[in-house]
Amino acid sequence: MAGQRADARRNYTLLLAVAERAIAEQGADASLEQIARTAGVGSGTVRRHFPTRHALLAAVFRKQTDVLADRARDLAGRPDSRAALLEWLGELLAFAATTRGLAETLNRDHAADPGEAHDHCATARLTEAGQPLVSRAAADGALTPGVTIDDLLSLITGIALATEHHPDAATEAKRLLGLTIAGVSPA
Amino acid sequence: MAGQRADARRNYTLLLAVAERAIAEQGADASLEQIARTAGVGSGTVRRHFPTRHALLAAVFRKQTDVLADRARDLAGRPDSRAALLEWLGELLAFAATTRGLAETLNRDHAADPGEAHDHCATARLTEAGQPLVSRAAADGALTPGVTIDDLLSLITGIALATEHHPDAATEAKRLLGLTIAGVSPA
Repeated sequence: MAGQRADARRNYTLLLAVAERAIAEQGADASLEQIARTAGVGSGTVRRHFPTRHALLAAVFRKQTDVLADRARDLAGRPDSRAALLEWLGELLAFAATTRGLAETLNRDHAADPGEAHDHCATARLTEAGQPLVSRAAADGALTPGVTIDDLLSLITGIALATEHHPDAATEAKRLLGLTIAGVSPA
Repeated sequence: MAGQRADARRNYTLLLAVAERAIAEQGADASLEQIARTAGVGSGTVRRHFPTRHALLAAVFRKQTDVLADRARDLAGRPDSRAALLEWLGELLAFAATTRGLAETLNRDHAADPGEAHDHCATARLTEAGQPLVSRAAADGALTPGVTIDDLLSLITGIALATEHHPDAATEAKRLLGLTIAGVSPA
């Protein structure tokens, strides 16, 4: 039984890792069959862990949100508050860009079938995680007065959405974030 | 015959104006029947001018693009090149925000049915129209080096998309554009 539980845990972790990469490469429509094949498990195993596509997408999204929240806590200890915030924003952007419409798909699925379990809290959790980085940078005079964590999340979401179909989306998004940080036409 | 042509022209102009407002208020799914009722014409008249919803959306989009292109030409004569560019960007943002997914809907329709007439050139025309404003502001040292008209269009598209579901989208979008112009954390 212990061996079966360990197997199940291993399969879960493996499926999640394979799904994460597939979604980054192909978007939220990534083939579940292909994910099962790459992970070397049967479709029954996939269904046992993730009864619906939505459940798999939500799990990938939650895992990545966890990683970003942990990163914010690590970075909060850095001496340079501006550098810490900008590094976190860069990672947030990479997340927003590689999930390629994941959040949007989850929201759409949820609207279509509100009965499905849905992690409404992702934005709330990222807001909470990023708040200390923003407060510290603001206290150090490294932020334009009035800029909030909500503003930064909105700007990053927008950049990810606007560059979604760009042939080199990651590079383009990073460049636009740099312009947003520096200002396109500071007074 | 001349009277009929004048009537047809008047109906076309009226339908376009009513549709423009309906789309700004309700998005690209605005009811065609309601538009016909508000304009005081029959559904046959709507169909004669706009055989499909796509045709109506495309006409509204094209009209607004024309207005913005004209505005860019007017503003190019202003003495303050930075103020001229920023004013145009504000109008571009209002356009992007009030069309509420119009461009996206047109693109999706087009992908689903590539046979339909489609104004692919909207972005190209706005790029061309905005270029002189950007060049002049850059020559006056009012732009961060390297910023292109494409960057500005992308940033504005992103802000419009990211604020789409905000209860006060127009105000929020304007604020985020202000932050993008000033920079959220200038070095």
